[in-house]
Amino acid sequence: MGKIITLTTDFGLNDGYIAAMKGVILGINPEARLVDICHTVPPRDIAEGAFVLGTAGDFFPPDTVHLVVIDPGVGTERPAVILKTPGASFVAPDNGVLSQVIRRYVPGTTDGDRWIFHPSEGVMIISIEEERFWRSPVSPTFHGRDIFAPVAAHLSLGVPPEEFGPEVTELAVFLENLPRKTSDDAILGTVIHVDSFGNLITNITAADLPDDAANIAIEIGSETINGLKRTYGEGDGLIGLIGSSGYLEIAWKNGSAAAHLKAGRGDTFTISRA
Amino acid sequence: MGKIITLTTDFGLNDGYIAAMKGVILGINPEARLVDICHTVPPRDIAEGAFVLGTAGDFFPPDTVHLVVIDPGVGTERPAVILKTPGASFVAPDNGVLSQVIRRYVPGTTDGDRWIFHPSEGVMIISIEEERFWRSPVSPTFHGRDIFAPVAAHLSLGVPPEEFGPEVTELAVFLENLPRKTSDDAILGTVIHVDSFGNLITNITAADLPDDAANIAIEIGSETINGLKRTYGEGDGLIGLIGSSGYLEIAWKNGSAAAHLKAGRGDTFTISRA
Amino acid sequence: MGKIITLTTDFGLNDGYIAAMKGVILGINPEARLVDICHTVPPRDIAEGAFVLGTAGDFFPPDTVHLVVIDPGVGTERPAVILKTPGASFVAPDNGVLSQVIRRYVPGTTDGDRWIFHPSEGVMIISIEEERFWRSPVSPTFHGRDIFAPVAAHLSLGVPPEEFGPEVTELAVFLENLPRKTSDDAILGTVIHVDSFGNLITNITAADLPDDAANIAIEIGSETINGLKRTYGEGDGLIGLIGSSGYLEIAWKNGSAAAHLKAGRGDTFTISRA
Repeated sequence: MGKIITLTTDFGLNDGYIAAMKGVILGINPEARLVDICHTVPPRDIAEGAFVLGTAGDFFPPDTVHLVVIDPGVGTERPAVILKTPGASFVAPDNGVLSQVIRRYVPGTTDGDRWIFHPSEGVMIISIEEERFWRSPVSPTFHGRDIFAPVAAHLSLGVPPEEFGPEVTELAVFLENLPRKTSDDAILGTVIHVDSFGNLITNITAADLPDDAANIAIEIGSETINGLKRTYGEGDGLIGLIGSSGYLEIAWKNGSAAAHLKAGRGDTFTISRA
Repeated sequence: MGKIITLTTDFGLNDGYIAAMKGVILGINPEARLVDICHTVPPRDIAEGAFVLGTAGDFFPPDTVHLVVIDPGVGTERPAVILKTPGASFVAPDNGVLSQVIRRYVPGTTDGDRWIFHPSEGVMIISIEEERFWRSPVSPTFHGRDIFAPVAAHLSLGVPPEEFGPEVTELAVFLENLPRKTSDDAILGTVIHVDSFGNLITNITAADLPDDAANIAIEIGSETINGLKRTYGEGDGLIGLIGSSGYLEIAWKNGSAAAHLKAGRGDTFTISRA
Repeated sequence: MGKIITLTTDFGLNDGYIAAMKGVILGINPEARLVDICHTVPPRDIAEGAFVLGTAGDFFPPDTVHLVVIDPGVGTERPAVILKTPGASFVAPDNGVLSQVIRRYVPGTTDGDRWIFHPSEGVMIISIEEERFWRSPVSPTFHGRDIFAPVAAHLSLGVPPEEFGPEVTELAVFLENLPRKTSDDAILGTVIHVDSFGNLITNITAADLPDDAANIAIEIGSETINGLKRTYGEGDGLIGLIGSSGYLEIAWKNGSAAAHLKAGRGDTFTISRA
């Protein structure tokens, strides 16, 4: 059975663009297994794309190729990269859309919005430059179809990453909304995603919370949540829990916390001991 | 070629949750054929999920595994089941989402909102309890990824249902809006689904109608439909016909009956002899 | 690896209709590779379906079968066809939904809204009439499931097109909004599609433009665009460029031209020398 290639884009569902990429891939590797991660990332929303990829990518078998095309700078000088980690390969524009993957799997340090890679076994960053793997001519407005898709397809056939261009040692990352301690006892958090159920997913992980998480108070808007629940089915009204991706979520029993609180991405809240 | 696994959820299209389940499945059974049935079932809408599954499941080859994750009670005490029928297997929470399948393929009787199974060749109900088939640790908020997906994958590899837990003899069903005779000549019907064309699909089947269906009068809102058509292209304005899933549908030629009538799920109408 | 079958419909994403077609196909050809092109074509919008198919179909490997079900006349006397071109096969109602493919790959001439085929090597048009390849009974409202899907599946197994019915020499096409010269120097163009980014895709191709395209002026609404850019990332505000499918597009840097101009399908503009 062929290798898996996943697709994450901001193309929406109303056009033929995604299918064009799939056709190109299957023309090169007829055995590829194509799996959609998400195509409704809002146009040009690199942070949202990075989040969604970060919540799904880890659950695929080793050797999966993740193709990510959220590419507002298409046709300009922004580089395109292959990132190989011990668990997977990623083919994407170098614009920060791999930020979550990089912080988790690529040893290195930040220098502003650049990630400086500390060479490490099993990790390799390639600048995509070898045109022989591309479609020709390349449309200046659709590298997804003409560069990224064929590169992902050839990679899935076993072409070594270093064939696609030179190794590089830096990648773009964006500054995450890291939780900020406002005092010894209070943490400032940020909503980073609203899921289809209206759950507010935040940048706070279990590790950020005090040991006695049962006793925390979450203040958001004019409401206070005391302690954490384990499931969406416990408690009543507004609850907090650690969700399936490891982040603190704020949920509303049998409804949408986003609608109830009129809250969304970028909104902040504080956590303190109750 | 591997077995087919279909997926029906209320996860929407904007998150990585569906892809996470697919990654888990392909990690266990790389040959599985994944087919989406529907992921835009409204959040927690068990009845709608049951309906959509009921209109698609029958058209798949024998031995298909249908994975259904509409699971508002995730992490609570609600059981999870494998239902094996002669034509397919279903992996789902035991919350009524299999109601349509059960009423069609599982011999038994209702006792309130429970279905009491009458043992029958080729039908088996298993309570999913054997943790060795699950991901570990199990997230209390995402059994779709950590329990249902791996169970479906192992099932598709040929693990016998009885390996996943003990047999049980009851399942949750919800009360269907069965057509009600209001007199010898009149039937009260209910809209149970609105499709993407705005067709109103009802709980009335051809068998519920009088023999001379050409002479019926359907009264809905302030309008009356006389007789039935065969296709959407016949007649003018509001028409009635028996749709492709066997239900009476109310349609509006070249438009949306739902928009025209401002009608939707739960709305009722009467059928009488014209 | 089995042949590819693509699917383009106006069924939307909230029903089980697409999955029912896929189940039927996989029951006949378990090796088929199913790829969705688009299912959110607006209900009954044959022109939009033709456009989306036209932008994606060319990128699939030879021998792909394209199944297209935008079929407002289902169950009436409208014919159903297989169109075989040197690069692909198409299974669709004969209602104009193949217009873009026909104009590109089928030698012939128009006679009103009919395309008169000039016999040519590698091109064949078949009227689908042989009921032995259909599901039985055929629902008068869902030929996608009961006729088109099984025909596409049998075709993908290698059944020759001529087995499905007699050859015919005409097909329905709709009049395209061909660019119209309003004077020696001015061209009248029309918006034929708005993509998910809000880019306005027009019926003008590079070949329609004067040789010195750098010096054109595009007037749309109360705004004028001077010259063409190469990518979405160049210039500021409203720009024109030749997009990835070969059409002139009107775009708004980092935003939606459709929203900015309050423009959409059918809107016109003029092109003249600046």
